[in-house]
Amino acid sequence: MRVSNSIRDNFGRSSWIRRMFEEGRKLRLELGDAAVYDFSLGNPDIEPPAVFGEALERFALDVRRGTHGYMPNAGYPHVRAIVAAHASTEQGLTIPADNIIMTVGAAGAINVALRTILDPGDEVIVLKPWFAEYWFYIQNFGGTFVGVDTRADWHLDLGAIEKALSPRTAAIIVNSPNNPSGVVYGREELAALSELLSRHGRASGRWPCLIADEPYRQIVYDGVEVPSIMALYPETIVATSWSKSLSLPGERIGYLAVSPDAANAREILDGLTLSTRILGFVNAPALLQRVVAEIIESKADISSYAHRGRILTEGLRASGYEFPDPRGAFYVFARVPPRSVASPEDPRDDVAFVMHLKERRILGVPGIGFGAPGNFRLSFCVPEKTIRESLPGFAEALKAW
Amino acid sequence: MRVSNSIRDNFGRSSWIRRMFEEGRKLRLELGDAAVYDFSLGNPDIEPPAVFGEALERFALDVRRGTHGYMPNAGYPHVRAIVAAHASTEQGLTIPADNIIMTVGAAGAINVALRTILDPGDEVIVLKPWFAEYWFYIQNFGGTFVGVDTRADWHLDLGAIEKALSPRTAAIIVNSPNNPSGVVYGREELAALSELLSRHGRASGRWPCLIADEPYRQIVYDGVEVPSIMALYPETIVATSWSKSLSLPGERIGYLAVSPDAANAREILDGLTLSTRILGFVNAPALLQRVVAEIIESKADISSYAHRGRILTEGLRASGYEFPDPRGAFYVFARVPPRSVASPEDPRDDVAFVMHLKERRILGVPGIGFGAPGNFRLSFCVPEKTIRESLPGFAEALKAW
Repeated sequence: MRVSNSIRDNFGRSSWIRRMFEEGRKLRLELGDAAVYDFSLGNPDIEPPAVFGEALERFALDVRRGTHGYMPNAGYPHVRAIVAAHASTEQGLTIPADNIIMTVGAAGAINVALRTILDPGDEVIVLKPWFAEYWFYIQNFGGTFVGVDTRADWHLDLGAIEKALSPRTAAIIVNSPNNPSGVVYGREELAALSELLSRHGRASGRWPCLIADEPYRQIVYDGVEVPSIMALYPETIVATSWSKSLSLPGERIGYLAVSPDAANAREILDGLTLSTRILGFVNAPALLQRVVAEIIESKADISSYAHRGRILTEGLRASGYEFPDPRGAFYVFARVPPRSVASPEDPRDDVAFVMHLKERRILGVPGIGFGAPGNFRLSFCVPEKTIRESLPGFAEALKAW
Repeated sequence: MRVSNSIRDNFGRSSWIRRMFEEGRKLRLELGDAAVYDFSLGNPDIEPPAVFGEALERFALDVRRGTHGYMPNAGYPHVRAIVAAHASTEQGLTIPADNIIMTVGAAGAINVALRTILDPGDEVIVLKPWFAEYWFYIQNFGGTFVGVDTRADWHLDLGAIEKALSPRTAAIIVNSPNNPSGVVYGREELAALSELLSRHGRASGRWPCLIADEPYRQIVYDGVEVPSIMALYPETIVATSWSKSLSLPGERIGYLAVSPDAANAREILDGLTLSTRILGFVNAPALLQRVVAEIIESKADISSYAHRGRILTEGLRASGYEFPDPRGAFYVFARVPPRSVASPEDPRDDVAFVMHLKERRILGVPGIGFGAPGNFRLSFCVPEKTIRESLPGFAEALKAW
């Protein structure tokens, strides 16, 4: 047997995040854990709230018949009702329980959505800087990835999106709060996006599906508002998870919510349910469904992210690094500083700068991994000590660049 | 937005199992639960063993840092090592921990395997009678489903398989113990299959991957042996789950094991790991991985399946129904009796016979749903009382046919 051509090609596209993580592993083996400042992975490092363990314990002891058996592919009816009420509050419109599909995390959710709407050759618009995995998710089902520029501050460039729309546009993925940039798109730019997509829908007869990928909705700073895209554009599917808000990414629990205003909501929901089944998810893990429904209003103590983000951003800025302040998620996406030492290469070569940081035992991810060369990403879900001790290295790196 | 053409077409192919389950739901609403004899679903109805709840409880209280976080996409290293030791004993050859990929159930496992090996247009051989979901799994990644006949007793017809092999054959799926027929393929026929596939591999240069779908391996009767296919054919990937053996299909936990003798094992494993990630599974649920590793030698008390299977098979046979005795799994796959009343239709029309049973409030699934018209499937994971009380209805149905 052999791997498919598409998978073999994908080996070459292997994730920069994983690659840097691998570099980190080698460095740690060589120098010891404490000597390496690893900002490469977005793995939440705080614990789930105490109520999570308590709910889990209660259910562990609950041995009623069939509690670990199959349920409808879309999820337990009572869980979908609870999630629908929660999502309705968050999104500011009434979402019926039928419009919720429980999923294996947000990554599972997006795959289920794309399996449902993509025919081979259909296009999916993705905004810069993007979560690199989208490329694979789209390719899984024969779709075409259409990367689109945003403005210098990473906010929406409606002209660029308009140019990218075509009769083959099946969907646009909008990730806010954004990984890696930390940008939260504002209400006005989202309303203008809705207007643009609606105009395209009316003119072409094909309304693009807007997939709102929102796993970081709960992780925002300074009270910033995350506007509801679903309330602004009817053809919206929200894909999200509890991985970040409850800090349990390894457990794989999330959901899809289809706007009650979507024209073909019923057919889309039937499609999402079928895709959940035939992609082999079958259903979101039973136990986790029941647990998240039980503690739906809880979240992990994310206050330490704000604290750690502040230490990192202030430290970097004091050294002369430039970046938009993260408004959500837990990343700084900084510009590679201009080179003071003359170089024949791209003066803002992000891969070279990340390797330059690595010489100071600091690990980040080059922007090219997010379609945005000339930048680099630092995750601040790392210990405060790591951040503080790394700051002199960042300062030195900039001086020596 | 709209659903893709492929999903819309699939609505029409909707599962006969689900359709009959839906019929059952209506009938129960109309007549009450107790009045309906529902043999349509293969949903294990016994409880997980007590050690499962105990392990779950221990882990619920175990709040060490990161226990619900990401781990490598293939699973926890310690879990893979424990599963490898278990699988090695089962399969009778030494499988290294690296050859195990933890998955979201067996359905997730097969999708991951097919994503890894299929290019569009590649063919996958599936043996009659087949689990209907294979058709979708193959279609997900642009593969072509090649249904192949077996003998009248459902054992392998090597001539038919030989005719179906082509240079486009990427894989063959072998499900033993078989759903729906209850057949367990014997060592000799499997050795002959290995010989045939090897001959094809040597001649064509393309060795078909044999996907051994084994979720029912533990559910066998009268001490029947389930030979290890992996020990007979080197290019084998075992796909399985704990859904049946621990009776927890809703929790979605299983694994893939790649033969240590496979020619490209390392590349295949890298592909399976990548596919796990990019299909959005990311990893098998963290908690369930740890629990199954903890209780790997346990199984649910499946003795009642044997008991209930005996009551159903003896009862049916006494009325005059014909079928091979189920050697594994929990289904009877019976022949539609010849019609005594003249009919212009197919005298063995399984859909008509299933509707005929439904008039007696008995629900089964027509064989056409498994590629084998002229038969019908009855699941015996239903209460003993249901079986006993349904028997007069079965007898009547046969007389009135």
